Amino acid sequence: MANNRENRVAFQGELGAFSHLAAIKLAGTRVSLLPCESFKQVFERLRKGEADKAVIPIENTLHGSVHENYDYLLQFDAPITGETTLRISHNLVALPEVKRAQIVRAFSHPVALNQCRRFFAEHPRIEPVAFYDTAGSVKMLKEERPAGTAAIASEMAAELYGAQIIERNIEDNPHNFTRFFLLTKQTPPRKGRTTGWKTSIVFSTANTPGALFRAMACFALRDLNLTKIESRPLPERPWEYLFYLDFFGAQTDEKVKRALDHLQEMATFFKVMGSYRPTP
Amino acid sequence: MANNRENRVAFQGELGAFSHLAAIKLAGTRVSLLPCESFKQVFERLRKGEADKAVIPIENTLHGSVHENYDYLLQFDAPITGETTLRISHNLVALPEVKRAQIVRAFSHPVALNQCRRFFAEHPRIEPVAFYDTAGSVKMLKEERPAGTAAIASEMAAELYGAQIIERNIEDNPHNFTRFFLLTKQTPPRKGRTTGWKTSIVFSTANTPGALFRAMACFALRDLNLTKIESRPLPERPWEYLFYLDFFGAQTDEKVKRALDHLQEMATFFKVMGSYRPTP
Repeated sequence: MANNRENRVAFQGELGAFSHLAAIKLAGTRVSLLPCESFKQVFERLRKGEADKAVIPIENTLHGSVHENYDYLLQFDAPITGETTLRISHNLVALPEVKRAQIVRAFSHPVALNQCRRFFAEHPRIEPVAFYDTAGSVKMLKEERPAGTAAIASEMAAELYGAQIIERNIEDNPHNFTRFFLLTKQTPPRKGRTTGWKTSIVFSTANTPGALFRAMACFALRDLNLTKIESRPLPERPWEYLFYLDFFGAQTDEKVKRALDHLQEMATFFKVMGSYRPTP
Repeated sequence: MANNRENRVAFQGELGAFSHLAAIKLAGTRVSLLPCESFKQVFERLRKGEADKAVIPIENTLHGSVHENYDYLLQFDAPITGETTLRISHNLVALPEVKRAQIVRAFSHPVALNQCRRFFAEHPRIEPVAFYDTAGSVKMLKEERPAGTAAIASEMAAELYGAQIIERNIEDNPHNFTRFFLLTKQTPPRKGRTTGWKTSIVFSTANTPGALFRAMACFALRDLNLTKIESRPLPERPWEYLFYLDFFGAQTDEKVKRALDHLQEMATFFKVMGSYRPTP
């Protein structure tokens, strides 16, 4: 079994952030956690060997793909070796000494505050206050113990910082999910069957009519099922695009190898970001 | 010429927000501006007739598509009738009485603060402080006149609230662009040629292998060039997807009509969100 020294996991945010929860799902509980200030720092610590693994959010059902992280995946050469999806639910949390009737303000990241508009409309006495981080707002409660103050954060953040949940699931939209990738420094040797595995690639094609259609033929003609396709314009090069593609199959499968060979015949740029078995 | 009563434009954010700038590019300067608290409110004011037009961000080169607004486009039936793209650049701004050497903190939305990490690393004396809105942070400077305090916001926000730019373009990544849509209550009658026009559609297909490939054939076989393709999983219905497609052509063009008829033969859901001439 891996000991903690071989299982140092970098993620962005404070302890109790959703990325922390994803790190536990993807790397287990016997890990040394390395909270980082920025996504870039997460990738840098993995490259420098200060971390053995990294966990990054890659897309959210309300906010779309995190292109910043797609950029780092190209820049840093850290293969994707795992994937999971978390439901993002927000809770009103406060320290044990704070009673519900005393709460007059709630700190959280503005994106989280914005996802709880209905709650604030129904509780006009509670003022939303912007903070740099969701879990960080609970940490601040613990450190500064301000009167009449709550935070909006995950259940895990409440537990970690000794706060309690005053009201659960106060987000407006229950269909708020974030998909996370697990990254490692090198592609681990694959053992066993690849049933249910997925592969993520990025490529460009010549900017000619039908080029993307022909690229997709490499997969469709081999009955390889896509689970994601997204074009991304390159603002520095108008009319050029990157395409992100996820499909079922591992890069070691014969059929996938042939599809990728075929794609490379027509791609002007091509990279396999990784193959992985999704964690439910 | 439209008078202001017929040109009331709703957008999310404070005056001076990037959406305000996009509103001027898309609807002109002879407009009555209706700043709204949320994207949902923008759509609601358009539906109720309190606004004649609405301007919404739809995707950003770093942060991806704003799926929340794609959802409202389906819910609210407000056709897209214009499109433009703005470069997002951040500036350190302060009131005229505040000298550069006095600045010890800068307020802004955490997403903007996060896009200016290099600036804060190079100026450790200036502390980033989270605020609910970029332009709102300049408004706050004007109203509360706190000592030693700056904001990070657009040039327009600085001008509007009588602040000045201390340092320009302090964002880390110069390739930060946001694409905006102009929406109206009804599709305006089309006049003249449709050269350079684009159409945005959303559709679903049966979850069978190659279904998306066949859907794309409707466009590829007619030499209609795609400018965006994005799959979006529906978390409430695993394995079902919406597809967002933008392509060159107007829905009144014969070739486009035939492509869309063809697509409807195989789509389980289909909607044209609008045709529009992009504003450079």
